[in-house]
Amino acid sequence: MPKALKYELLAWEIEGLIGSGTYKSGDPLPSVRALGEQKKLSVTTVLKAYYMLEAQGLVEARSRSGFYVSRTRQHLTPEPLISTPDLDPSRLEVQQLVGMLLKDGLNPDVVPLGAAYPDPELSATEKLNRICTAISRKLGNRTGQYDMPPGCLEFREQIARHMVAAGCSLAADDIVTTFGATEAISVCLRAVCRQGDTVAVESPIGMDTLLALELLGLKALEIPTHPRDGISLEALRFAVDNNQVQACLVIPNFNNPLGSLMPDDQKRRLVKVMTERRIPVIEDDVFGDIHFERDRPSTVKSFDTDGWVMLCSSFSKSTSPGYRLGWTAPGRFLSKVSWIKYTSSSACTTLHHLAMADFMAHGGFKQHLRLVRREYGNRVSSLRRAVIRLFPKGIKVTRPLGGFLLWVEMPRSVNALDLYKRALDSGISIAPGHIFSASDRYRNFIRLNAGLWSDELEWAVKRLGRLIAEMS
Amino acid sequence: MPKALKYELLAWEIEGLIGSGTYKSGDPLPSVRALGEQKKLSVTTVLKAYYMLEAQGLVEARSRSGFYVSRTRQHLTPEPLISTPDLDPSRLEVQQLVGMLLKDGLNPDVVPLGAAYPDPELSATEKLNRICTAISRKLGNRTGQYDMPPGCLEFREQIARHMVAAGCSLAADDIVTTFGATEAISVCLRAVCRQGDTVAVESPIGMDTLLALELLGLKALEIPTHPRDGISLEALRFAVDNNQVQACLVIPNFNNPLGSLMPDDQKRRLVKVMTERRIPVIEDDVFGDIHFERDRPSTVKSFDTDGWVMLCSSFSKSTSPGYRLGWTAPGRFLSKVSWIKYTSSSACTTLHHLAMADFMAHGGFKQHLRLVRREYGNRVSSLRRAVIRLFPKGIKVTRPLGGFLLWVEMPRSVNALDLYKRALDSGISIAPGHIFSASDRYRNFIRLNAGLWSDELEWAVKRLGRLIAEMS
Repeated sequence: MPKALKYELLAWEIEGLIGSGTYKSGDPLPSVRALGEQKKLSVTTVLKAYYMLEAQGLVEARSRSGFYVSRTRQHLTPEPLISTPDLDPSRLEVQQLVGMLLKDGLNPDVVPLGAAYPDPELSATEKLNRICTAISRKLGNRTGQYDMPPGCLEFREQIARHMVAAGCSLAADDIVTTFGATEAISVCLRAVCRQGDTVAVESPIGMDTLLALELLGLKALEIPTHPRDGISLEALRFAVDNNQVQACLVIPNFNNPLGSLMPDDQKRRLVKVMTERRIPVIEDDVFGDIHFERDRPSTVKSFDTDGWVMLCSSFSKSTSPGYRLGWTAPGRFLSKVSWIKYTSSSACTTLHHLAMADFMAHGGFKQHLRLVRREYGNRVSSLRRAVIRLFPKGIKVTRPLGGFLLWVEMPRSVNALDLYKRALDSGISIAPGHIFSASDRYRNFIRLNAGLWSDELEWAVKRLGRLIAEMS
Repeated sequence: MPKALKYELLAWEIEGLIGSGTYKSGDPLPSVRALGEQKKLSVTTVLKAYYMLEAQGLVEARSRSGFYVSRTRQHLTPEPLISTPDLDPSRLEVQQLVGMLLKDGLNPDVVPLGAAYPDPELSATEKLNRICTAISRKLGNRTGQYDMPPGCLEFREQIARHMVAAGCSLAADDIVTTFGATEAISVCLRAVCRQGDTVAVESPIGMDTLLALELLGLKALEIPTHPRDGISLEALRFAVDNNQVQACLVIPNFNNPLGSLMPDDQKRRLVKVMTERRIPVIEDDVFGDIHFERDRPSTVKSFDTDGWVMLCSSFSKSTSPGYRLGWTAPGRFLSKVSWIKYTSSSACTTLHHLAMADFMAHGGFKQHLRLVRREYGNRVSSLRRAVIRLFPKGIKVTRPLGGFLLWVEMPRSVNALDLYKRALDSGISIAPGHIFSASDRYRNFIRLNAGLWSDELEWAVKRLGRLIAEMS
């Protein structure tokens, strides 16, 4: 390669690193010596490259301290906030839509009624952070050792105790810790299904779950689910007797998006039906702790005698999303689940799990839960009242007994994706029904998140109501 | 059900919770009222159950504060430390063996030459913990918000910069954060393979990787690998041209267990061979930062122009295992990898990734790496010297230029699993060759971990040497 080209190539590469944001305005660039050695180029060649970039105004030299990214030019183009998916979105566009919802939920300029985020200010993150500090003072570098599956013993013991109130008789040894309920469910699905298998799920169901199934090569069989009592056992029984179903995935306590709560009798019958057929039940209980009535609802797992129920949960909704405090009690599949977890993400975050165990044992976790439950109960009912008052007559809205989500049915003429786009133009994010079914059943439904609700946001419900009226 | 049975059943359940350790000696048990409501039993029934357990000496009543697990009896049986796998271990026994190695590595009573653990005292965990405390003071509960894929921007920017010294031109947007390199590799495998596919791997290779492949339903095709130069390109080319290979998984920088380092020319040729055949290369670079020579070795990714290389790495070996600081730059498979990560474990641990970004930007990460590299370099060479001096003549040992592992070949007559058992009887854990191949090629090899080595452990090498001599 001729010498002239070498420095041009190097300059082009550095320009790429600046353009992509790896080096930002004002940042020091690698020293001439270091870059020369690393690229096996002479000092002269590297200097030539830097001089060329300097001439273009991209970098600037400072005497005795090397080259820096120029402060005078802005190299990064901001990302567009809003894309415009079609009204009949393809699979890929549904993925994009989910991605956008997740981003909008963290954007302070958007009213966050879309993604199912809890309120960071209602979390116990700061408390957990303080406990981490205290544990770190005591244990030092040992807080960074591998915490291999089944995971932190202290944390698993606390989970077992916590679940006594939900009717579960678990021992620490029945439990494997995971990164959130998402990992718990993913690992359980992998333990009992092979590519091409069919999993019965509730309908409507979050797109996260549908995507998880799709990316594992599994087919979803959507079973009708009642907004009050949960999955229809009659329909489920018919489905498993007439289809090759390898597993069933349910959210008996406060389904997302319905908020439905399966009565104990139904839970017992579900276990019976599936145990007789030797079909594993994956139970997602992430909202179980956020009950508005006094008693903690039981789990399907509470009625499991033969180990066919794989209970999955986390403290993400009630305590701290970013701590990724998930777990599963996978019954007879314990050993396989433990090994899949080990090969999927190895250890959990040691310090975080120690801190949560401490918070549960001595730190006021129970009081925290009481506060969270009361507050989300209030938010759900005030958002619900606002919807009833400010949306056009004829809409339907769920009356959940837990969680922080509302499911709204609009007139058939209203396309939720269209509403989503118009709402976002007004700075309001909502979740269109399109993302709650693979077979596009909920085009005139929306899910509203009450997790971040406050009465000052009433204007947003009013605005949504007006948009729906215009579109009806 | 007759009444008499109800309290016996309840007592039996409580006994189970005590026996399994969910409630421990001295712990308070659920109140009579709460338990009665939860189980839908009368106060009398619950009290009868407690009285029965009291009579058995399992629980004790304290006036005005309810029932407690009795302090006077020890209910938990300690787990056996050492199981005894066969000399021709089945698949299951190999899993057990891996599980035992992982446990022994954390047992303070065992000399930890087995599992590939780094030294917690050489980690930067405490420093990271302190940074977490500072960030938490500033950001409070926001440190617990979801950090959705691709993950923390600040952390990805620092990774992109860090990898410039390894010859990579990455932007933050090319990177997805993961829970350790384990998750990075698992997600990359899932992005490019379907069940039943074949993956070419180096041989020897860690059982973790073989287990990960097996649990994903993938077949491993083991390719001869040289202790100095890494995977044989001739053998690999032959293999991919004569087999249906869907991906290739390599550890070019300091293979575990060999410590081999692939020269730049080989790396370049590997990219060429695989790009021509459109076969993705998954590159595991977890040991790349722990180089003993002055220059950071390049990655295979450095020579990738068409996006077929999926670079996976973490800071677990160099900085903190328990922080789970992994990442991948998966080239043309970026979008799919990002969605698989999202559905497998959702967000990463927000605060941890912010802390690592800060440590890399301002916190002395570079000095830390220098210290770690020097120290592991010293440990590897002193363990190596001890092996040469104290093992019988005729053994062979690698001379790695990075990482902290040694690979030792013993006379053919020595069965490593037998040695493993005898060594464990003496309180020394080693990794037998049996766990580095699915086809049982390394029965007379062992891997030694120098990560936790200090000269006071010389007696252990002496003891191992004597055992080998006896068995030769």
